[in-house]
Formats: sequence, C-alpha cells, structure tokens
Amino acid sequence: MNIGLIGFGKTGKAVARTLIREEGINLKWIIRKSDKKNQLTANDILDEPSDNLTEIFSINSIKLNEFFKENKVDFIIDFSSEESIKIYGEAATENGIKIVSAVSHYSEETIDFIKKLSEKTVTFWSPNITLGVNYILVISKFMKKIAPEVDIQIVEEHFKGKDEISGTAKVLASNLDVDNNEIKSIRAGGIVGKHEIIFGFPFQTVRLTHESISREAFGNGVIFVVKNIIDKEKGFYNYEDLMKPFFEF
Amino acid sequence: MNIGLIGFGKTGKAVARTLIREEGINLKWIIRKSDKKNQLTANDILDEPSDNLTEIFSINSIKLNEFFKENKVDFIIDFSSEESIKIYGEAATENGIKIVSAVSHYSEETIDFIKKLSEKTVTFWSPNITLGVNYILVISKFMKKIAPEVDIQIVEEHFKGKDEISGTAKVLASNLDVDNNEIKSIRAGGIVGKHEIIFGFPFQTVRLTHESISREAFGNGVIFVVKNIIDKEKGFYNYEDLMKPFFEF
Amino acid sequence: MNIGLIGFGKTGKAVARTLIREEGINLKWIIRKSDKKNQLTANDILDEPSDNLTEIFSINSIKLNEFFKENKVDFIIDFSSEESIKIYGEAATENGIKIVSAVSHYSEETIDFIKKLSEKTVTFWSPNITLGVNYILVISKFMKKIAPEVDIQIVEEHFKGKDEISGTAKVLASNLDVDNNEIKSIRAGGIVGKHEIIFGFPFQTVRLTHESISREAFGNGVIFVVKNIIDKEKGFYNYEDLMKPFFEF
Amino acid sequence: MNIGLIGFGKTGKAVARTLIREEGINLKWIIRKSDKKNQLTANDILDEPSDNLTEIFSINSIKLNEFFKENKVDFIIDFSSEESIKIYGEAATENGIKIVSAVSHYSEETIDFIKKLSEKTVTFWSPNITLGVNYILVISKFMKKIAPEVDIQIVEEHFKGKDEISGTAKVLASNLDVDNNEIKSIRAGGIVGKHEIIFGFPFQTVRLTHESISREAFGNGVIFVVKNIIDKEKGFYNYEDLMKPFFEF
Repeated sequence: MNIGLIGFGKTGKAVARTLIREEGINLKWIIRKSDKKNQLTANDILDEPSDNLTEIFSINSIKLNEFFKENKVDFIIDFSSEESIKIYGEAATENGIKIVSAVSHYSEETIDFIKKLSEKTVTFWSPNITLGVNYILVISKFMKKIAPEVDIQIVEEHFKGKDEISGTAKVLASNLDVDNNEIKSIRAGGIVGKHEIIFGFPFQTVRLTHESISREAFGNGVIFVVKNIIDKEKGFYNYEDLMKPFFEF
Repeated sequence: MNIGLIGFGKTGKAVARTLIREEGINLKWIIRKSDKKNQLTANDILDEPSDNLTEIFSINSIKLNEFFKENKVDFIIDFSSEESIKIYGEAATENGIKIVSAVSHYSEETIDFIKKLSEKTVTFWSPNITLGVNYILVISKFMKKIAPEVDIQIVEEHFKGKDEISGTAKVLASNLDVDNNEIKSIRAGGIVGKHEIIFGFPFQTVRLTHESISREAFGNGVIFVVKNIIDKEKGFYNYEDLMKPFFEF
Repeated sequence: MNIGLIGFGKTGKAVARTLIREEGINLKWIIRKSDKKNQLTANDILDEPSDNLTEIFSINSIKLNEFFKENKVDFIIDFSSEESIKIYGEAATENGIKIVSAVSHYSEETIDFIKKLSEKTVTFWSPNITLGVNYILVISKFMKKIAPEVDIQIVEEHFKGKDEISGTAKVLASNLDVDNNEIKSIRAGGIVGKHEIIFGFPFQTVRLTHESISREAFGNGVIFVVKNIIDKEKGFYNYEDLMKPFFEF
Repeated sequence: MNIGLIGFGKTGKAVARTLIREEGINLKWIIRKSDKKNQLTANDILDEPSDNLTEIFSINSIKLNEFFKENKVDFIIDFSSEESIKIYGEAATENGIKIVSAVSHYSEETIDFIKKLSEKTVTFWSPNITLGVNYILVISKFMKKIAPEVDIQIVEEHFKGKDEISGTAKVLASNLDVDNNEIKSIRAGGIVGKHEIIFGFPFQTVRLTHESISREAFGNGVIFVVKNIIDKEKGFYNYEDLMKPFFEF
C-alpha cells in the first residue's frame, strides 16, 4: 500500500514514524508547508532507516496534479489543517487517490466539500483517529441505550496549560447527550492525555478509560483505517462505519 | 409483573429488597430452605414496607405444584444453589412460570436439565447477573475482534480472605481466550469487588472497569432481565441474547 | 476501656457496631435524641450480640450529671450535632470523662467552648475521623513542602444528589492552599466516597487516593483515636497530634 | 552549579536534556563509553541549544585525574553501570567532587567502596532517583507504622516484554516487609511505568500511585538531590536523608 502524508508537525512526525515502521505500507512522500530541510528524507530526520526512502516536499515547490501523477499513492493521509483539503482535494480525486483526514476540526462548509469529493473517491474523516477513543465512543453509546437513566460523568486529564476541555471529551459528551458542563477537566504537570467515562448505577460503577502514551497512537489509528477502508466503494466514511463489522455477535 | 424468589441468603435478601422497591414489580413470595422466622414477612425482616406484602415459605412446608397454582407468578428468580432447580423446575414449567437463575455454578448435567425445561417455557441463566459485568463481557469481546493482537490483562480486587481468582474474572478470561494465569488477584481489606480489563496497545491503553458497591446490583440485574425477556418465545437464554438488540448502530 | 456514644443516626449506628465488636472496648451506653425503641439494647437493634449489653437512653429522660456518675466511662464519642457538646460538655468534664468529637462542623464559638473544657480534660475533634483521610491530609502537606511548585488537583466522587463539593475535599484543599474551584466533583449513582489528590510533575504523576467502603470506617477511626489519646495530658488535640509520633524516621 | 555526567544511554540522554534546561545548573561535560560522534556536543545531539555547551568525551580518550583538574565540577552524576565508580571514584574524591549515583544496582562490595569514598566527600546513591517514587517509599513506611496490621498489595504496570517484577516494586515491597509474591505485575502494550501500593482496611482503601510519563523524571530527581545535598558534610547519603527535613510538623 502506497501512502502520501500531508502535514509534518509533531503529530505528523509521529504518524510518519509509525507508517515507516509498518510492514506492508510504503510511505512514499510527505508534503509539508515549510521549505526548510526538505533536502533531507523523513528517514534521516526521524532516524528511521528503511529500504524505501520517504521524500519530503514543500507545498510551494510542486504542482499537485503533476506530482500526484508522477508519485502515485493509494491514500493521502492528512494531518495538516482545515484549508489543505481544498488545495489538494480535487487533484487527488482526479488521480483516484483515497483521502483519510485526521484534521481536528472542519466547518460545515468544508464537510460539504469533502462530501462532494466522495462522489468520486473514498474519503474518511475522524477528528481523533486513535483506535481506543473511537472504540470508547461506540461502546459508550451502547451503554446509554441499555441504561438510558444511568448517570454519566466525563473526566479528562491533560498537561498543565492545555485550554479547558479537550476536543475529544466534547465529542464523547455530545455523543452521549451530556452537557459540556458535566465534563471535569484535570490539568496537572505533563499528563499526556486521559479520558474516562463514568457510568454510575445505584449499586455498581462502570468506567471506560483511554490513556494516551504518545502521538504514535494516531499512526496506528491510520493503519487501522486504511486496512479497513481499502476495499470500500466510493463515499464519505467515519470511524463508526469501519467498526460496525466487528460488532457482530 | 408477579415474581417469586428462591433463596434468601445475603444476596437473596439484597435482591428481595430491590424487587420490593421497584415499581411495576410485585415480589409475591420467597421460598427458602430454613424454617425459622417464616412467620414474618420479608417486608418486616428487611424493614421495607410495601402495599403488597412478601410472604416467606420454607421449602419443607409446601407442596410445590399446589403452591405454584395457588400463588401464581410470572417469574421465578433463583438465587439459591445448584440442586434447587431440579426440585422446582418441572412444577414451575407445568404452571407456565418463566425461570431466571443467577446460581453461580451449574454442571453440564444441570444445564441439560434446564435446556429440557426450555422446550416448554422461557429459561435464563447468568452466573453473574449484574448489568455492568455483562456489558463488559460483551464489549471486551468486540475489542478483541477489532484488535486481535492487543495485550490483555485482567485484574480483580476483592476483600482479604476471598479464595484466589473470582468466578467473574475467570468468565472474563475464558471469554477473551486469556489464560487464568494472566488474571492478577488483589486481596486487601474489605474491597467489595472490582474487575478491570486492560487492553495494552503500544501507544495507548484502554481500561474497562466494573466496581461493585453492594449486592443490590444483582437485584437491578434481575429487573433488566425480566423486563427484556418477558415477551420472548420459550427457549434457553443468556445475557448476551438480551443485550444484542441494544448493540444496533 | 469504657465508652459512651452520643448520636445514633446512620453513622452513629455504624460506629456502635464497630465498637461493640472491638476487643478491649466496652460500649456501655448510647445517648440519642429520639425516645422510640429505647427499651431495646443496641445489640438487639444492630443484631450484634455481646457479653456486655449496650443500653440506649434518650437525652430527654436522663439527668446528665447523675447519669455520668452512675454510668462511668473513660470516653464520650460524639457523632451527633454541633449543639450537643454544649449540653453534655461540662457534666462530662466534671466527671473526668475524655471527649472525642467527630461532629462535621463546629463554629469558632463552639471551638472556643471546647478549648475551655480542655483545661480540665482531654478533648479531641476531627470533622472526618477516618484514619485514611487523615493520613492523606498529613502526607499531602509534606509533598507540598518537598515540591512547592507542583500542580495540585483534587477530585472527589460521591453518589448522585450529594451537594456540590464534599467537606473532606474542602479540608484537603485548604490544607494545601488550593482554591475550592480546583476541586472537581463527580456525582454518579451510588458511589460511597472517593477522594484523590493528584500531584502533577512534568514527567511523573503522584496520586493519593482514599476510597470509602462503608461508614464503619468512622468506627475504626474512633478506635485509633482512643488508643492513641488515652495517656495524653489534658488539652485540645487533633488528628495530626496523634499521627505525629508515627512520622519518625 | 557545575555538573559532569557519566553515562549517555537512553536515561543519560533524558537526564542531560533536563540538566541543560535547568537554570542555575551548568552541565559542563559528559563522559561516555563509546567513541562515536564525540566531536558533537550534547546540545547538538539532543537539539537543546544553550549558552554553555556540553562537551562529550569518551572514557578511553581521557586521563581522569587530569581531566577532573582541568574540567572542574561540583558534582558527578552517574547513570552508567556498576563498574564505573570504581574507575572514576578516587580521582573524583581527590578533586573534591561530590558523587551522586543513580545506578540501579550495586553489590555489597561496591557499596563498601562508596562508603570508603564518603570519608572524604559527599556521596549519594539511589537506585530510582525520581522524586515521586522516593516520596511514596517514605510515606508508605509511615502508613505501616500507623497501621501495622493493614493489608498491603503492590501492583506495577509496565510495557509488554519487561522482565517480571520491576526493581522499584521490589524495593517498595522490601521496604514494607511484603513478600515479592505479593507484587502483581501487569504487562501490556507500551505502558511506561506505574506503581501502586494498596492499603486495604476493612471499610476503606488507601492507594498511593506513581505514574511515569518519561525518563526526564530522573533528571528532575537529580536536580532535587543536588540542591538538597550541596551543603551537607561528607558522608554517604540516601534519598530518605534528604527528605527527612521536609517531614517536620
């Protein structure tokens, strides 16, 4: 499977590292905003040797349509920002490339644009592409169905200085019809990231907890997504669509 | 809904208390082994007043067939021990009573006997009838399907003196193809009961935790079961069967 | 050791149960507000047989000074409410009885009154008399001394319906100079009570957690207090005073 | 404060990074085993710019006595292995350098050697130099003094593949007179490191938990040690000695 990555910030780097290490995946190229150091390969920068080197290009130095033709990939993985997909989206679609975006926020308008692209190719979007968070999203909704009256509390812990309420906690809350006021945010030291949903029953408590160890978890999420979306018909997919088949009794 | 309860030990008492308090349920009678105090109602013993009193009978002082005819109930809830169902099973079946058993262990032979009864009525068995534990049983199996290679560890905490490895932990383990050696048992003070399944990924950890507060959780489990099994065709059901409809996307 | 208990509400009952069971302690009598049932012993009401029965008296049916003379005890344990000590305090002091109060709140004025009593006898007050909470109070203060710049967060979990912010959490916070806004309160189902202090460092996290299982923990706290205060000179003591000798290197 | 570091493995690098960033500390040099790359400064290798560059030397290319004379430091911090101190110990002592070792294991014989050095200088050894673990070591011993009969369980969680039972867990256990069999080891995914001491009382549970986020925690431990040992008389110190002054009421 040949993959191109858009975005090479902290998370992009961790994702690149994971993809380079994964057997059966060839991270062919990375497109980033900045120009600096783009003579080096990602393998050099990340100190991750590989048979197939991953070249880095600046978005300003390439013509996308030609680039995609000459550097064929099956998937574009997008860890950049909202505006990128509007720049590369049509060129990618015309070259039959599937798009997997993990950009953390899209406006309604951008989502409409992606849906348009989906008429011609496979597109996917998840604001938090880790497997664990999405598993908890799905199973927590089932708990609410089973016990609609259960008390729900959401606790999230992050490093000191992170703005109040994590985006993931908000998604968990809206998913469960819980008000954002019910999210309790802990900020202390260097905690990487922890989300806990507490289901309180009169005589028992159920806790679903996700703990992040490092950003490479996003890379593993990408691997899950591309493996499970590769054979899909064109259309706009989310994580729940890909998890559904595993929830068979 | 009229209910009869078999068994009035510590757990039976907690279940009786929960059923007496539940609107829409009438706990009509309790059958117990011992003779003592059976002139008192369960309402007196438990200090739980109610419009419909719950009488207590000794198994030795009644003829089951006649008793079931004169004291009609929709369900028998069994919190006694393995041998009971062989005593009351056929009389119950002949009187069209559904059977819900929460006895913690049955031999293959007894299970066969229950299956026989199931040809004529609705029967149900769960060795741990709490909602929380069964929810975790179901969702943990889905995680294993999604990520077959994930590391799984099971930790259970109970009061000092409890024999090594809880039955529920063993069920969780066998459900996930985890060896009993992988269960870590904590024994300290008066911990009521905690079960945790740890799913370890390279860069994230997911924990599913169930904490027992008190035995009344078994009563709430019974209420879930009777409400969700009342309209079923005759047959032998388990908790998964009743949860299935809630796991629809 | 002969003990008299003031207060026989939910917590008073749990404390009485613990004291009746404790070897070396004789719970001689209980004084309560209400008149009902006071012909029964505490042993009957609590179903706790004992060689020395614990009689129950109504505050309205006795003259305290005479009562204390005729029913000599070493300690009065007070689990009632703020006003009680003003009623029994002087009579107790005159009869050489030591006073251990676990009333959850006293005004400055009442504290002054207790200090007055302390000129003639041993008095002790702790708004949460459990061993665990007081241990955490003491050790958390040491952490703050060791690392004054550490991030501190306090999380407390209790049953749905409990008024915002537990008293114990407030004591923990003021003890650590943490603003009450920094306390995160979780309310769900029937959680008995959990307090956690999180110390967040850039590269490590320390958590001190106290979980309540049942009110009997207060009884064990009383036993610790009476055993460690019995030989003290007259004066007004708190939990820290009794813990100090154990914190020797 | 001028510091020299012995050892530049994974932990040594994380420690170097922390020391370079710390105001008031000048990491003057690092001595390592290997020869490669020693023309680069630690600032280059770690991408940590600083006014005072940290040079790296190979142990094979220097004469220690002369080196120490020409490259004066207040402290040597040792994150290498058992044999190192025997090589640099006497030269360091003769040059009035204080020695702080975080080597994870020393034989009795080596400890005797360090004690010998301590007759002339300040020496310090801690097999786990993080602040959090040492705090928990000290406070857990106090709990055992307060409640000698309490049930103690130790749980440690680490990444899959780590050999059974962490060294820190063993130290915690021996410190509390708990048998190593009582340590429960969880191995799953990429868990960095978690240690929990559970104190089980009949009606309450106290948990002391330490979670590692990254190896830089060792660097912060070093900073605590050098700041608190700088004014000590010559002698052999451990972490408890440095913590003692903070445990004053």
